[in-house]
Amino acid sequence: MPCSIARSLDVIGEGWTILVLRDVFRGIRRFDELQRDLGIATNVLTARLKRLVDEGLLERQRYEQRPPRYEYHLTAKGRDLFPVLIALVNWGDKYLAGPGGPPRVLVHKACGKPTSPILACSECGESVGPGDLRLLVREEEAEPAQRAG
Amino acid sequence: MPCSIARSLDVIGEGWTILVLRDVFRGIRRFDELQRDLGIATNVLTARLKRLVDEGLLERQRYEQRPPRYEYHLTAKGRDLFPVLIALVNWGDKYLAGPGGPPRVLVHKACGKPTSPILACSECGESVGPGDLRLLVREEEAEPAQRAG
Repeated sequence: MPCSIARSLDVIGEGWTILVLRDVFRGIRRFDELQRDLGIATNVLTARLKRLVDEGLLERQRYEQRPPRYEYHLTAKGRDLFPVLIALVNWGDKYLAGPGGPPRVLVHKACGKPTSPILACSECGESVGPGDLRLLVREEEAEPAQRAG
Repeated sequence: MPCSIARSLDVIGEGWTILVLRDVFRGIRRFDELQRDLGIATNVLTARLKRLVDEGLLERQRYEQRPPRYEYHLTAKGRDLFPVLIALVNWGDKYLAGPGGPPRVLVHKACGKPTSPILACSECGESVGPGDLRLLVREEEAEPAQRAG
């Protein structure tokens, strides 16, 4: 658990990175559109996009030859951050929205209802909360010194 | 969606903040234990804990009178970040673990199986992915000028 959270933050924890991904999820894919929507300096946006491409979360696709222009698409690795974004939305909606409530709601297309997606066990489908999981240290990963001791 | 993600990051996006919360979820609650586990400067840890208390994610409880010493407990607001942490764990486990796989696995106590919790609709229980949700802008939140226009 410590490693995977820390490693994830190392990739997506930089300022603006998650908001860039959020925009791409929403279909905002071109540099100038991203810049306009986020209102950040071009050099910062360039650096964030480069990192996201280098880490394999986004891929560049050319949409214009002269001058060459690119748009950014989510890879499978980037798309798999969807639960992180949704979890942040839910929490912000619940605790940080103004008195009028969150400005937008998520609707589950299949059932048609406003939804605040929850965590469910990938194996049995039951909802899981903080008390429902335990960490199991894999033995083959234990330090030799610890195993001998 | 933009607001809630940005607002959430404003609270928990600072370096180390999520790792402090992770430790408290794991039962590491005292200043010196947190400092030892995280290996960060005491002034940084002090600042992060103060912010987390000020924002209502942690609360201090005195466990020793002389000298006064405190431990930090999750509030409901803090506990509700559980899905964010689990989503980060899952993603890191899948994409950033070494060749031997993640060092620890999560086990669902109720069903006894290793689990990678997924997102499910809070209303119908079906699993939800990136294409399954749509954003609905609440009309009453629209700008008066837009409504007139």
